Amino acid sequence: MAAPIEFYFDFSSPFGYLASEKIDALAAKHGRDVVWRPFLLGAVFKITGGTAPMNVPVKGDYYRHDFPRTARLFGVAYNQPTSFPINTVNPARAFYWLDAKDPARAKDLARALLRAYFVDDIDISDTERMLAVCAGTGLKADEVREGIGDAGVKERTKTEVDQAIAKGVFGSPYMVVDGEPFWGSDRLDQVEKWLATGGW
Amino acid sequence: MAAPIEFYFDFSSPFGYLASEKIDALAAKHGRDVVWRPFLLGAVFKITGGTAPMNVPVKGDYYRHDFPRTARLFGVAYNQPTSFPINTVNPARAFYWLDAKDPARAKDLARALLRAYFVDDIDISDTERMLAVCAGTGLKADEVREGIGDAGVKERTKTEVDQAIAKGVFGSPYMVVDGEPFWGSDRLDQVEKWLATGGW
Repeated sequence: MAAPIEFYFDFSSPFGYLASEKIDALAAKHGRDVVWRPFLLGAVFKITGGTAPMNVPVKGDYYRHDFPRTARLFGVAYNQPTSFPINTVNPARAFYWLDAKDPARAKDLARALLRAYFVDDIDISDTERMLAVCAGTGLKADEVREGIGDAGVKERTKTEVDQAIAKGVFGSPYMVVDGEPFWGSDRLDQVEKWLATGGW
Repeated sequence: MAAPIEFYFDFSSPFGYLASEKIDALAAKHGRDVVWRPFLLGAVFKITGGTAPMNVPVKGDYYRHDFPRTARLFGVAYNQPTSFPINTVNPARAFYWLDAKDPARAKDLARALLRAYFVDDIDISDTERMLAVCAGTGLKADEVREGIGDAGVKERTKTEVDQAIAKGVFGSPYMVVDGEPFWGSDRLDQVEKWLATGGW
Protein backbone atom coordinates (compact mmCIF):
# COMPACT_ATOMS: atom_id res chain seq x y z
CA MET A 1 0.00 0.00 0.00
CA ALA A 2 1.20 3.49 -0.81
CA ALA A 3 2.25 5.84 1.99
CA PRO A 4 -0.54 7.10 4.22
CA ILE A 5 -1.85 10.65 4.00
CA GLU A 6 -0.80 12.84 6.93
CA PHE A 7 -3.77 14.76 8.29
CA TYR A 8 -2.95 17.67 10.62
CA PHE A 9 -5.75 19.50 12.40
CA ASP A 10 -6.57 21.51 15.50
CA PHE A 11 -9.57 20.36 17.53
CA SER A 12 -10.91 23.93 17.49
CA SER A 13 -10.74 24.34 13.72
CA PRO A 14 -14.09 24.22 11.86
CA PHE A 15 -12.43 23.43 8.54
CA GLY A 16 -10.33 20.80 10.28
CA TYR A 17 -13.54 19.24 11.54
CA LEU A 18 -15.14 19.34 8.06
CA ALA A 19 -12.08 17.69 6.53
CA SER A 20 -12.01 15.07 9.31
CA GLU A 21 -15.43 13.90 8.19
CA LYS A 22 -14.21 13.38 4.62
CA ILE A 23 -10.54 12.53 4.55
CA ASP A 24 -10.58 8.79 5.36
CA ALA A 25 -13.26 7.91 2.82
CA LEU A 26 -11.50 10.02 0.20
CA ALA A 27 -8.19 8.31 0.93
CA ALA A 28 -9.74 4.84 0.94
CA LYS A 29 -11.07 5.38 -2.59
CA HIS A 30 -7.44 5.62 -3.64
CA GLY A 31 -6.17 2.77 -1.46
CA ARG A 32 -4.62 5.05 1.15
CA ASP A 33 -4.68 5.15 4.91
CA VAL A 34 -4.71 8.39 6.86
CA VAL A 35 -2.54 9.18 9.87
CA TRP A 36 -4.21 11.78 12.10
CA ARG A 37 -1.95 14.33 13.76
CA PRO A 38 -3.70 16.92 15.95
CA PHE A 39 -1.59 20.00 16.60
CA LEU A 40 -2.09 23.32 18.37
CA LEU A 41 -2.82 26.40 16.29
CA GLY A 42 -1.93 28.48 19.35
CA ALA A 43 1.65 27.24 19.11
CA VAL A 44 1.73 28.10 15.39
CA PHE A 45 0.38 31.60 15.94
CA LYS A 46 3.22 32.29 18.38
CA ILE A 47 5.62 31.74 15.47
CA THR A 48 3.67 33.17 12.56
CA GLY A 49 2.29 36.13 14.49
CA GLY A 50 -1.15 35.04 13.34
CA THR A 51 -4.41 34.90 15.20
CA ALA A 52 -7.66 32.97 14.85
CA PRO A 53 -9.48 34.36 11.79
CA MET A 54 -12.59 34.84 13.90
CA ASN A 55 -10.72 37.47 15.88
CA VAL A 56 -9.87 39.49 12.77
CA PRO A 57 -12.22 42.42 12.10
CA VAL A 58 -14.49 41.91 9.05
CA LYS A 59 -12.99 38.45 8.35
CA GLY A 60 -14.67 37.02 11.45
CA ASP A 61 -18.12 37.98 10.17
CA TYR A 62 -17.42 36.27 6.88
CA TYR A 63 -16.31 33.07 8.57
CA ARG A 64 -19.35 32.96 10.86
CA HIS A 65 -21.33 32.80 7.62
CA ASP A 66 -18.95 30.58 5.65
CA PHE A 67 -18.47 27.79 8.23
CA PRO A 68 -22.11 26.62 8.29
CA ARG A 69 -22.55 27.32 4.58
CA THR A 70 -19.59 25.13 3.66
CA ALA A 71 -20.72 22.48 6.17
CA ARG A 72 -24.12 22.32 4.44
CA LEU A 73 -22.35 21.93 1.09
CA PHE A 74 -20.25 19.10 2.57
CA GLY A 75 -23.37 17.49 4.05
CA VAL A 76 -21.81 17.64 7.51
CA ALA A 77 -23.70 18.68 10.68
CA TYR A 78 -22.38 21.95 12.12
CA ASN A 79 -23.37 24.26 14.95
CA GLN A 80 -21.13 27.20 15.74
CA PRO A 81 -19.72 26.46 19.21
CA THR A 82 -20.59 29.02 21.88
CA SER A 83 -17.08 29.04 23.28
CA PHE A 84 -14.81 29.56 20.27
CA PRO A 85 -11.97 29.19 19.59
CA ILE A 86 -10.74 27.13 22.54
CA ASN A 87 -7.46 25.80 23.89
CA THR A 88 -7.15 22.25 22.58
CA VAL A 89 -4.18 20.86 24.47
CA ASN A 90 -6.35 18.46 26.48
CA PRO A 91 -8.06 16.85 23.48
CA ALA A 92 -4.66 16.61 21.74
CA ARG A 93 -3.15 14.86 24.77
CA ALA A 94 -6.11 12.48 25.03
CA PHE A 95 -5.60 11.64 21.37
CA TYR A 96 -1.87 10.96 21.66
CA TRP A 97 -2.37 8.98 24.88
CA LEU A 98 -4.71 6.63 23.03
CA ASP A 99 -2.81 6.76 19.72
CA ALA A 100 0.20 5.14 21.38
CA LYS A 101 -1.97 2.13 22.20
CA ASP A 102 -4.52 2.00 19.40
CA PRO A 103 -4.35 4.48 16.49
CA ALA A 104 -7.69 3.43 15.02
CA ARG A 105 -9.46 3.96 18.31
CA ALA A 106 -7.68 7.29 18.74
CA LYS A 107 -9.19 8.39 15.44
CA ASP A 108 -12.64 7.37 16.64
CA LEU A 109 -12.06 9.36 19.81
CA ALA A 110 -11.00 12.39 17.77
CA ARG A 111 -14.16 12.14 15.69
CA ALA A 112 -16.28 11.94 18.85
CA LEU A 113 -14.53 14.98 20.35
CA LEU A 114 -14.88 17.02 17.16
CA ARG A 115 -18.58 16.18 16.87
CA ALA A 116 -19.14 16.93 20.54
CA TYR A 117 -17.65 20.38 19.99
CA PHE A 118 -18.98 21.25 16.54
CA VAL A 119 -22.38 19.57 16.71
CA ASP A 120 -23.38 19.34 20.38
CA ASP A 121 -21.66 22.55 21.54
CA ILE A 122 -19.72 20.77 24.29
CA ASP A 123 -16.68 22.79 25.36
CA ILE A 124 -13.99 20.11 25.06
CA SER A 125 -11.34 22.45 26.52
CA ASP A 126 -13.05 21.77 29.85
CA THR A 127 -11.43 18.64 31.28
CA GLU A 128 -14.55 17.16 32.92
CA ARG A 129 -16.71 17.73 29.85
CA MET A 130 -14.01 16.25 27.63
CA LEU A 131 -13.71 13.22 29.89
CA ALA A 132 -17.48 12.71 29.65
CA VAL A 133 -17.17 12.60 25.86
CA CYS A 134 -14.30 10.11 26.17
CA ALA A 135 -16.44 7.97 28.48
CA GLY A 136 -19.18 8.05 25.86
CA THR A 137 -16.83 6.23 23.47
CA GLY A 138 -16.28 3.44 26.00
CA LEU A 139 -13.06 4.73 27.56
CA LYS A 140 -12.69 4.94 31.32
CA ALA A 141 -12.69 8.58 32.39
CA ASP A 142 -10.13 7.98 35.12
CA GLU A 143 -7.71 6.33 32.70
CA VAL A 144 -7.99 9.26 30.31
CA ARG A 145 -7.54 11.70 33.18
CA GLU A 146 -4.38 9.89 34.19
CA GLY A 147 -3.27 9.71 30.55
CA ILE A 148 -3.53 13.43 29.83
CA GLY A 149 -1.65 14.17 33.05
CA ASP A 150 1.17 11.77 32.21
CA ALA A 151 4.55 13.40 31.61
CA GLY A 152 5.31 11.11 28.65
CA VAL A 153 2.00 11.94 26.98
CA LYS A 154 2.58 15.64 27.50
CA GLU A 155 6.04 15.30 25.99
CA ARG A 156 4.75 13.27 23.03
CA THR A 157 2.10 15.90 22.35
CA LYS A 158 4.66 18.70 22.47
CA THR A 159 6.98 16.76 20.17
CA GLU A 160 4.20 16.12 17.66
CA VAL A 161 3.26 19.80 17.60
CA ASP A 162 6.90 20.84 17.19
CA GLN A 163 7.38 18.31 14.39
CA ALA A 164 4.25 19.51 12.61
CA ILE A 165 5.47 23.10 12.72
CA ALA A 166 8.95 22.01 11.60
CA LYS A 167 7.30 20.33 8.59
CA GLY A 168 5.63 23.61 7.67
CA VAL A 169 2.15 23.05 9.10
CA PHE A 170 0.69 26.51 9.78
CA GLY A 171 -3.06 26.03 9.46
CA SER A 172 -5.83 23.48 9.89
CA PRO A 173 -6.51 21.21 8.13
CA TYR A 174 -3.13 20.57 6.52
CA MET A 175 -2.73 17.42 4.50
CA VAL A 176 0.42 15.89 3.06
CA VAL A 177 0.24 13.41 0.17
CA ASP A 178 3.56 11.88 -0.82
CA GLY A 179 5.34 14.98 0.45
CA GLU A 180 2.94 17.38 -1.27
CA PRO A 181 1.25 19.80 1.17
CA PHE A 182 -2.32 21.03 0.94
CA TRP A 183 -3.83 23.56 3.33
CA GLY A 184 -7.54 23.91 3.90
CA SER A 185 -10.71 21.91 3.50
CA ASP A 186 -11.11 23.74 0.18
CA ARG A 187 -8.03 21.86 -1.05
CA LEU A 188 -9.67 18.44 -0.60
CA ASP A 189 -10.54 18.43 -4.29
CA GLN A 190 -6.85 19.00 -5.05
CA VAL A 191 -5.89 16.21 -2.62
CA GLU A 192 -8.27 13.90 -4.46
CA LYS A 193 -6.94 14.91 -7.84
CA TRP A 194 -3.35 14.47 -6.64
CA LEU A 195 -4.19 10.96 -5.40
CA ALA A 196 -5.87 10.10 -8.68
CA THR A 197 -3.22 11.50 -11.01
CA GLY A 198 0.02 11.59 -9.03
CA GLY A 199 0.28 15.32 -9.53
CA TRP A 200 0.03 17.93 -12.26
CA MET B 1 -30.98 39.55 -16.80
CA ALA B 2 -30.25 38.74 -13.17
CA ALA B 3 -27.99 41.05 -11.15
CA PRO B 4 -24.32 41.02 -12.11
CA ILE B 5 -21.70 39.32 -9.96
CA GLU B 6 -19.45 41.73 -8.11
CA PHE B 7 -15.81 40.76 -8.49
CA TYR B 8 -13.37 42.43 -6.07
CA PHE B 9 -9.65 41.89 -6.49
CA ASP B 10 -6.28 43.47 -5.87
CA PHE B 11 -3.90 43.74 -8.85
CA SER B 12 -1.16 42.16 -6.74
CA SER B 13 -3.20 39.11 -5.69
CA PRO B 14 -2.28 35.80 -7.39
CA PHE B 15 -5.63 34.23 -6.52
CA GLY B 16 -7.36 37.39 -7.72
CA TYR B 17 -5.54 36.97 -11.03
CA LEU B 18 -6.51 33.29 -11.28
CA ALA B 19 -10.16 34.12 -10.58
CA SER B 20 -10.06 36.98 -13.11
CA GLU B 21 -9.25 34.46 -15.82
CA LYS B 22 -12.32 32.38 -14.96
CA ILE B 23 -15.09 34.54 -13.53
CA ASP B 24 -16.64 36.02 -16.69
CA ALA B 25 -16.95 32.70 -18.51
CA LEU B 26 -18.36 31.08 -15.38
CA ALA B 27 -20.89 33.89 -14.96
CA ALA B 28 -21.87 33.83 -18.65
CA LYS B 29 -22.78 30.13 -18.37
CA HIS B 30 -25.45 31.24 -15.93
CA GLY B 31 -26.53 34.33 -17.86
CA ARG B 32 -24.73 36.77 -15.60
CA ASP B 33 -22.49 39.73 -16.17
CA VAL B 34 -19.56 40.54 -13.90
CA VAL B 35 -18.73 43.98 -12.53
CA TRP B 36 -15.00 44.26 -11.76
CA ARG B 37 -14.02 46.26 -8.71
CA PRO B 38 -10.28 46.45 -7.98
CA PHE B 39 -9.50 47.45 -4.41
CA LEU B 40 -6.35 47.85 -2.33
CA LEU B 41 -5.39 45.08 0.07
CA GLY B 42 -3.03 47.55 1.75
CA ALA B 43 -6.03 49.62 2.85
CA VAL B 44 -7.74 46.48 4.18
CA PHE B 45 -4.68 45.38 6.14
CA LYS B 46 -4.63 48.75 7.92
CA ILE B 47 -8.05 47.86 9.34
CA THR B 48 -7.73 44.11 9.85
CA GLY B 49 -4.15 44.26 11.11
CA GLY B 50 -3.33 41.68 8.45
CA THR B 51 -0.36 41.40 6.16
CA ALA B 52 0.33 39.77 2.82
CA PRO B 53 0.47 35.99 3.40
CA MET B 54 3.82 35.86 1.64
CA ASN B 55 5.28 37.88 4.50
CA VAL B 56 4.10 35.40 7.14
CA PRO B 57 6.75 32.89 8.26
CA VAL B 58 6.10 29.32 7.06
CA LYS B 59 2.89 30.36 5.26
CA GLY B 60 4.90 32.23 2.64
CA ASP B 61 6.79 29.09 1.63
CA TYR B 62 3.53 27.22 1.20
CA TYR B 63 2.07 29.93 -1.01
CA ARG B 64 5.16 30.11 -3.21
CA HIS B 65 4.42 26.45 -3.95
CA ASP B 66 0.62 26.71 -4.04
CA PHE B 67 0.26 29.67 -6.42
CA PRO B 68 1.87 27.97 -9.46
CA ARG B 69 0.39 24.58 -8.54
CA THR B 70 -3.15 25.99 -8.46
CA ALA B 71 -2.48 27.98 -11.63
CA ARG B 72 -1.50 24.76 -13.42
CA LEU B 73 -4.70 23.12 -12.17
CA PHE B 74 -6.69 26.11 -13.49
CA GLY B 75 -4.83 25.95 -16.79
CA VAL B 76 -3.71 29.56 -16.37
CA ALA B 77 -0.19 30.82 -17.13
CA TYR B 78 1.65 31.96 -14.00
CA ASN B 79 5.13 33.17 -13.17
CA GLN B 80 5.84 34.37 -9.67
CA PRO B 81 6.58 38.11 -10.03
CA THR B 82 10.04 39.18 -8.90
CA SER B 83 8.72 42.24 -7.11
CA PHE B 84 5.90 40.96 -4.91
CA PRO B 85 3.58 42.06 -3.47
CA ILE B 86 3.39 45.57 -4.91
CA ASN B 87 1.44 48.76 -4.32
CA THR B 88 -1.46 48.67 -6.77
CA VAL B 89 -2.95 52.14 -6.51
CA ASN B 90 -1.79 53.11 -10.02
CA PRO B 91 -3.37 50.13 -11.79
CA ALA B 92 -6.56 50.66 -9.75
CA ARG B 93 -6.71 54.32 -10.77
CA ALA B 94 -6.07 53.44 -14.42
CA PHE B 95 -8.94 50.97 -14.20
CA TYR B 96 -11.41 53.41 -12.67
CA TRP B 97 -10.35 56.16 -15.07
CA LEU B 98 -11.29 53.92 -18.00
CA ASP B 99 -14.26 52.29 -16.26
CA ALA B 100 -16.03 55.65 -16.11
CA LYS B 101 -15.90 55.80 -19.90
CA ASP B 102 -16.03 52.17 -21.01
CA PRO B 103 -16.42 49.37 -18.42
CA ALA B 104 -15.83 46.57 -20.94
CA ARG B 105 -12.57 48.14 -22.07
CA ALA B 106 -11.58 48.71 -18.44
CA LYS B 107 -11.94 44.97 -17.88
CA ASP B 108 -9.72 44.28 -20.89
CA LEU B 109 -7.16 46.68 -19.47
CA ALA B 110 -7.30 44.94 -16.09
CA ARG B 111 -6.70 41.59 -17.76
CA ALA B 112 -3.73 43.00 -19.65
CA LEU B 113 -2.25 44.48 -16.46
CA LEU B 114 -2.74 41.26 -14.48
CA ARG B 115 -1.13 39.17 -17.23
CA ALA B 116 1.74 41.64 -17.56
CA TYR B 117 2.41 41.24 -13.85
CA PHE B 118 1.72 37.54 -13.35
CA VAL B 119 2.96 36.17 -16.67
CA ASP B 120 5.54 38.64 -18.04
CA ASP B 121 6.93 39.80 -14.67
CA ILE B 122 6.35 43.47 -15.44
CA ASP B 123 6.22 45.55 -12.26
CA ILE B 124 2.94 47.39 -12.82
CA SER B 125 3.45 49.49 -9.68
CA ASP B 126 6.02 51.38 -11.74
CA THR B 127 4.14 54.14 -13.56
CA GLU B 128 6.15 54.07 -16.78
CA ARG B 129 6.02 50.29 -17.08
CA MET B 130 2.30 50.32 -16.36
CA LEU B 131 1.74 52.99 -19.00
CA ALA B 132 3.60 50.84 -21.51
CA VAL B 133 1.19 47.98 -20.80
CA CYS B 134 -1.74 50.38 -21.22
CA ALA B 135 -0.31 51.53 -24.53
CA GLY B 136 -0.12 47.90 -25.60
CA THR B 137 -3.92 47.69 -25.33
CA GLY B 138 -4.33 50.67 -27.66
CA LEU B 139 -4.68 53.40 -25.05
CA LYS B 140 -2.62 56.57 -25.30
CA ALA B 141 -0.01 56.59 -22.55
CA ASP B 142 -0.33 60.33 -22.02
CA GLU B 143 -4.08 60.09 -21.56
CA VAL B 144 -3.68 57.35 -18.97
CA ARG B 145 -0.97 59.36 -17.23
CA GLU B 146 -3.31 62.32 -17.03
CA GLY B 147 -6.16 60.06 -15.94
CA ILE B 148 -4.37 58.48 -12.99
CA GLY B 149 -3.26 61.95 -11.86
CA ASP B 150 -6.78 63.38 -12.03
CA ALA B 151 -8.26 64.37 -8.67
CA GLY B 152 -11.68 62.96 -9.59
CA VAL B 153 -10.17 59.60 -10.56
CA LYS B 154 -8.20 59.49 -7.34
CA GLU B 155 -11.34 60.27 -5.36
CA ARG B 156 -13.38 57.65 -7.26
CA THR B 157 -10.70 55.03 -6.54
CA LYS B 158 -10.64 55.91 -2.85
CA THR B 159 -14.44 55.78 -2.69
CA GLU B 160 -14.54 52.38 -4.39
CA VAL B 161 -11.98 50.97 -1.95
CA ASP B 162 -13.86 52.43 1.03
CA GLN B 163 -17.14 51.01 -0.25
CA ALA B 164 -15.60 47.58 -0.79
CA ILE B 165 -14.30 47.53 2.77
CA ALA B 166 -17.65 48.79 4.08
CA LYS B 167 -19.28 45.85 2.29
CA GLY B 168 -16.98 43.44 4.11
CA VAL B 169 -14.37 42.81 1.42
CA PHE B 170 -11.20 41.76 3.25
CA GLY B 171 -9.37 39.53 0.78
CA SER B 172 -8.84 38.93 -2.92
CA PRO B 173 -10.69 37.68 -4.84
CA TYR B 174 -14.01 38.38 -3.17
CA MET B 175 -17.14 37.70 -5.14
CA VAL B 176 -20.73 38.64 -4.32
CA VAL B 177 -23.63 36.78 -5.94
CA ASP B 178 -27.05 38.15 -5.08
CA GLY B 179 -25.73 39.44 -1.77
CA GLU B 180 -23.91 36.19 -0.96
CA PRO B 181 -20.15 36.68 -0.38
CA PHE B 182 -17.42 34.24 -1.41
CA TRP B 183 -13.75 34.76 -0.63
CA GLY B 184 -10.98 33.10 -2.58
CA SER B 185 -10.39 31.48 -5.92
CA ASP B 186 -11.06 28.18 -4.13
CA ARG B 187 -14.65 29.32 -3.68
CA LEU B 188 -15.27 29.54 -7.44
CA ASP B 189 -16.88 26.11 -7.31
CA GLN B 190 -19.24 27.40 -4.64
CA VAL B 191 -19.97 30.50 -6.72
CA GLU B 192 -20.84 28.26 -9.64
CA LYS B 193 -23.05 26.03 -7.51
CA TRP B 194 -24.77 29.07 -5.99
CA LEU B 195 -25.49 30.41 -9.49
CA ALA B 196 -26.83 27.03 -10.61
CA THR B 197 -28.99 26.33 -7.58
CA GLY B 198 -29.77 29.68 -5.98
CA GLY B 199 -28.15 28.55 -2.75
CA TRP B 200 -28.12 25.65 -0.35
